[in-house]
Amino acid sequence: MALRSAPAAVCPRFHKAVELVGRRWTGAILSTMLAGATRFTDIVHAVPGLSDRLLSERLKELENEGIVVRQVHPDTPVRIEYLLTEKGRALSCVTEAVSIWADKWVELESPSDCPACDEHATTTTTVEGAKLAIANA
Amino acid sequence: MALRSAPAAVCPRFHKAVELVGRRWTGAILSTMLAGATRFTDIVHAVPGLSDRLLSERLKELENEGIVVRQVHPDTPVRIEYLLTEKGRALSCVTEAVSIWADKWVELESPSDCPACDEHATTTTTVEGAKLAIANA
Repeated sequence: MALRSAPAAVCPRFHKAVELVGRRWTGAILSTMLAGATRFTDIVHAVPGLSDRLLSERLKELENEGIVVRQVHPDTPVRIEYLLTEKGRALSCVTEAVSIWADKWVELESPSDCPACDEHATTTTTVEGAKLAIANA
Repeated sequence: MALRSAPAAVCPRFHKAVELVGRRWTGAILSTMLAGATRFTDIVHAVPGLSDRLLSERLKELENEGIVVRQVHPDTPVRIEYLLTEKGRALSCVTEAVSIWADKWVELESPSDCPACDEHATTTTTVEGAKLAIANA
C-alpha cells in the first residue's frame, strides 16, 4: 500500500467560526440583521420558529463575540437597537456564499415554503443520484 | 414615528443550509474532506475532539443530504471511502468564505492552538472596542 501523508488538522479558527455562524438560529438572525433589521421584534418576526427567549440568548452570544452591539436610545419609550459591528458586517461574505449554495442545492419539502425562491433553479440530488454521478465521474 | 416596512422573512433554503453546514462538527468534517481526506480514520484524526460515534452520525447525515457518498472497495481487507458529491464539493465556496472571515476576526485563547495560523493577522475585537467603532462610525 502506498504511503499517504496524514491530512492537516482542521484550523481551530475555522472550526470556531463555522460553529458560531451555524449555531441553531444564529445564521438566520445574522442574515436578517445583514438585511437591515435592527429591532428585536423585527428580527424575531423574520425568523419563523424563533422564540423571544432564544433570540435574546443568541443576541447576547453575538454581543459577547463582538459581532453585535446593543444600543439604548433614551427616547420615550426607550428604544433599543441591535447593530452589527464591522466584524459582524464582514460575515456578509459567508451568508452570501451560503445563499448561493442553498439556492442551487437545497430542496424544500414544499416549494411554497419560500415564495421568494419560486423562480430559483433547484437541483434534485438524491443519494442514489449522487452515487451515480460519482460512478460516472 | 416614521413607518417602517417589515423585514423580509429569512429564506428557508438559506436557513436549512446554514444549519446543516454549521451543525456541531459538520463544518470541520467538510473542511477536512474538501482538503482531500476520504478515510474515516483520517477524518477523525484531523478534527480534534471528534469521536468515532459522532463522525459516523455526521457522515450518515451528509449521505442522506446527498453531500457525501460511501464507497466500498472489495479489497482485502475491505476498504471504505467517503467522497464528496458535486453538491458537497460546491460547499468549498462556503468553507472558503468562513476561513477568510475566521483568519481576520477569530481569536484563539492560545495562539499555539493553531500553528498554521501563527502568521495570520488577527484583529482584537472586544465588546467595548466594537461599541466605540460603532459610535465613531
